[in-house]
Amino acid sequence: MTIDADRLDALLHPAFDPDADYDVLAHGVAASPGAARGEVVFTAPEAVEAGEAGRDVILVRPFTEADDVAGFHAARGILTSEGGKASHAALVARGMGRPCVVGASDLHVDLDAETASVGDTTIGKGDVIAIDGSNGQITLDDVPLVEAQVSEAFETVLGWADDVRRLGVRANADAPGDARRARELGAEGVGLCRTEHMFMAADRQPKMRAMILAEDHDDRRAALDELLPLQQRDFQGLFEAMEGLPVTIRLLDPPLHEFLPPVDSLPEGSSERETAEALQETNPMLGTRGVRLGIIAPEIYEMQVRAIARAAQAVDGAPHVEIMVPLVDYEKELEIVGAQIVRVAEEEGLSDYSLGTMIELPRACLVADRIAQHADFFSFGTNDLTQTGLGFSRDDVEGSFLDDYLEAKILTRSPFETIDEPGVGQLVRMGAWLGRKARADLKLGICGEHGGDPESIDFFHRSGLDYVSCSPFRVPIARVAAAQAAIRNG
Amino acid sequence: MTIDADRLDALLHPAFDPDADYDVLAHGVAASPGAARGEVVFTAPEAVEAGEAGRDVILVRPFTEADDVAGFHAARGILTSEGGKASHAALVARGMGRPCVVGASDLHVDLDAETASVGDTTIGKGDVIAIDGSNGQITLDDVPLVEAQVSEAFETVLGWADDVRRLGVRANADAPGDARRARELGAEGVGLCRTEHMFMAADRQPKMRAMILAEDHDDRRAALDELLPLQQRDFQGLFEAMEGLPVTIRLLDPPLHEFLPPVDSLPEGSSERETAEALQETNPMLGTRGVRLGIIAPEIYEMQVRAIARAAQAVDGAPHVEIMVPLVDYEKELEIVGAQIVRVAEEEGLSDYSLGTMIELPRACLVADRIAQHADFFSFGTNDLTQTGLGFSRDDVEGSFLDDYLEAKILTRSPFETIDEPGVGQLVRMGAWLGRKARADLKLGICGEHGGDPESIDFFHRSGLDYVSCSPFRVPIARVAAAQAAIRNG
Repeated sequence: MTIDADRLDALLHPAFDPDADYDVLAHGVAASPGAARGEVVFTAPEAVEAGEAGRDVILVRPFTEADDVAGFHAARGILTSEGGKASHAALVARGMGRPCVVGASDLHVDLDAETASVGDTTIGKGDVIAIDGSNGQITLDDVPLVEAQVSEAFETVLGWADDVRRLGVRANADAPGDARRARELGAEGVGLCRTEHMFMAADRQPKMRAMILAEDHDDRRAALDELLPLQQRDFQGLFEAMEGLPVTIRLLDPPLHEFLPPVDSLPEGSSERETAEALQETNPMLGTRGVRLGIIAPEIYEMQVRAIARAAQAVDGAPHVEIMVPLVDYEKELEIVGAQIVRVAEEEGLSDYSLGTMIELPRACLVADRIAQHADFFSFGTNDLTQTGLGFSRDDVEGSFLDDYLEAKILTRSPFETIDEPGVGQLVRMGAWLGRKARADLKLGICGEHGGDPESIDFFHRSGLDYVSCSPFRVPIARVAAAQAAIRNG
Repeated sequence: MTIDADRLDALLHPAFDPDADYDVLAHGVAASPGAARGEVVFTAPEAVEAGEAGRDVILVRPFTEADDVAGFHAARGILTSEGGKASHAALVARGMGRPCVVGASDLHVDLDAETASVGDTTIGKGDVIAIDGSNGQITLDDVPLVEAQVSEAFETVLGWADDVRRLGVRANADAPGDARRARELGAEGVGLCRTEHMFMAADRQPKMRAMILAEDHDDRRAALDELLPLQQRDFQGLFEAMEGLPVTIRLLDPPLHEFLPPVDSLPEGSSERETAEALQETNPMLGTRGVRLGIIAPEIYEMQVRAIARAAQAVDGAPHVEIMVPLVDYEKELEIVGAQIVRVAEEEGLSDYSLGTMIELPRACLVADRIAQHADFFSFGTNDLTQTGLGFSRDDVEGSFLDDYLEAKILTRSPFETIDEPGVGQLVRMGAWLGRKARADLKLGICGEHGGDPESIDFFHRSGLDYVSCSPFRVPIARVAAAQAAIRNG
């Protein structure tokens, strides 16, 4: 109980050698722990290209957006001049376990000139920098990095924690490497595989775009047919890495325009541009995504379920597959899409799987008893539930009024870091209670960012959830925090 | 009980003479009742200019956005080729009582060419058309319009309704003309005055923009000082029109970028453009608006409260002023902004007013007992509560998946028309119950679009609310529906 679980994180990542002598060029917010060194690149495609060529790069941006996620995969670390701990860059980097420093406000990033400068010092593309996401330092010096060392004492503590805790601990992982790392750190399954990350890889994007921009049904099917074997291979990798432990796969969630190039980059008057324009949304967070896509374009989920079923049967052993439908509001949505999943699974000869849903909208929490009639499990998506429950767009409020709110003591921490117990937490409790009322054996988990936050884990323990799922690097923290929650609450 | 309250609406507006002979050019969705005739214009500024010159115009667009609202004020009617009953055009037009036909899909609107065509017929700028928003008809013929006739029988029925109903009926009105019309139709007060509409008038926009783009504190104060007398005059007009009946004034709600010209139209590299870019939001619905603006830029609400206080003291009689803070999530927000309101009101010598809040976010409903400690009244903003509770962006889902949802019977009506009782309605009930638990004399109203929908009014009656507020033209409907709810539920 004397361990500060939150601070364990730093032990699990490389760091600047504390004994080394180096000059700190600038400081930022320590957004995702670990140290990294590499050549500076200023765009995600450059990071991807360099990554494919085996070069270590640091992606430097004023701030990041959904389009940049492929660059996070490829880079060793991420550095931004704007934003705080709840910025897009910080959240995505933490989710992936990538070292990240954000809000380095002394750093002026000029994307046109491809330079980043601090006072008189100018860094160009290809210059080598090092960042330490555990302390927010940035340096041009050749400081040695020391590897993470999981000591025997630490392993002992984790063993004690496992004896005590009631909550299961899973990891959010989209790739076999992440899944393996999560298992090494003690994850008992994958609680969230975000299939959209698979479509964002450089070789997938053109196929995904062809699918979205397809002018007719046949074109769309053809594009999906090309994606199917790739998805299948992704899932096989995950199942193999997890060796029979449960793997929760979320069907496609984001709005389709996230996969398209910017409208301005498409030729004026082209049908591609027209489609892209028609898909633009005023509030994409509240638009055509999740199960809504599953209803209006059922062929996408059909392809994904087929890929899951084939992958499950292609690997040795018996993978435990959990198919998860995102953004459900109405029980009827899950009924319709669920029937399709059952049909496709049957066609493919897959019988051993479970079918569940994300609970990530206030309405879903309030009618969870109805939804539970079509679900084997719920996974609370507390990121989106925070966005809708509070009316906070994560992309917009951070760097805007959130800082003022902390200063005025309206908030003590960002609600994206620690769950807002009176509001969002109450929705989770209602959803859990109503779900179990309708179906006593309903499995309950949580796969938002909060799954790796000790204070939130305490709340999930008290709310009777079965497991938390967090980024692989936070699994040890979650194990300790879950044990502490069990002790604290008896 | 045999009256279909919803159909009363058509009686209260002009219509095409049913005995006249005319050719229907095209049909659209009957989005806001009433008939109108005028010259075609294709942009809101043209509508404003024509309106100022005393010409009758019909604003024709593929669809409308926040920028077009000034054009709604100026035009006699609105016609769009896209969208349905929940589109922006339909909602704004209904709110203002402007005749409106939307989704006339045979109509091809070419904004560049300034033409609208149906088959071989091309309509140019300045051509005269007539629309009937009660039946969705569009014609080029000179069909006579017959005026609304409120018969004696109808007045008798409304009198009976008033004897029976428990719910009060107010109107949403932003201008003296609307307020007077609402009173004529029986409104017992203004339940929602949206102060932002005042800033959208052509003569206010430049001042508002100067305020937003101000580079320093002094510039901003100077711009606000110019807006103050204009706001004061607006409020005076409203108070005079309402002759002592309660008037609920909502302080500024929308994000500031809604008042700015499109970023692309500002000179590259200018500080205006930089400010406008910095204010862009990914999900404006969930961004820096409502009380969040009140916290980070307190001078705006200060100016508004000063204008309210001066207006209240400048008119004869004793206006009953209710100052309403939008988008509250945390009791502390209302505590901070409330203290400022009290201070400014005291400075201005205003003592007879009440202070309340919109309840329009799920969190606010869940912690309504805490919020009630700082509020004299709650007004449920069920439009935004529907957007956040369901995760539906009104601007995006209509014309997208909503139609598929109706077809698949996931929905039976748009949740923006009739309140979603199991989800959003449950939030309203919780908010009402918790609010009254903390403060027994808390006044409870509702000012969303649902305030004029008979089925929703029945729900608000059952939930124990004190009043509904709807667009002026729906006041008679609400009176009848409230009476029917009282009879139906005993």
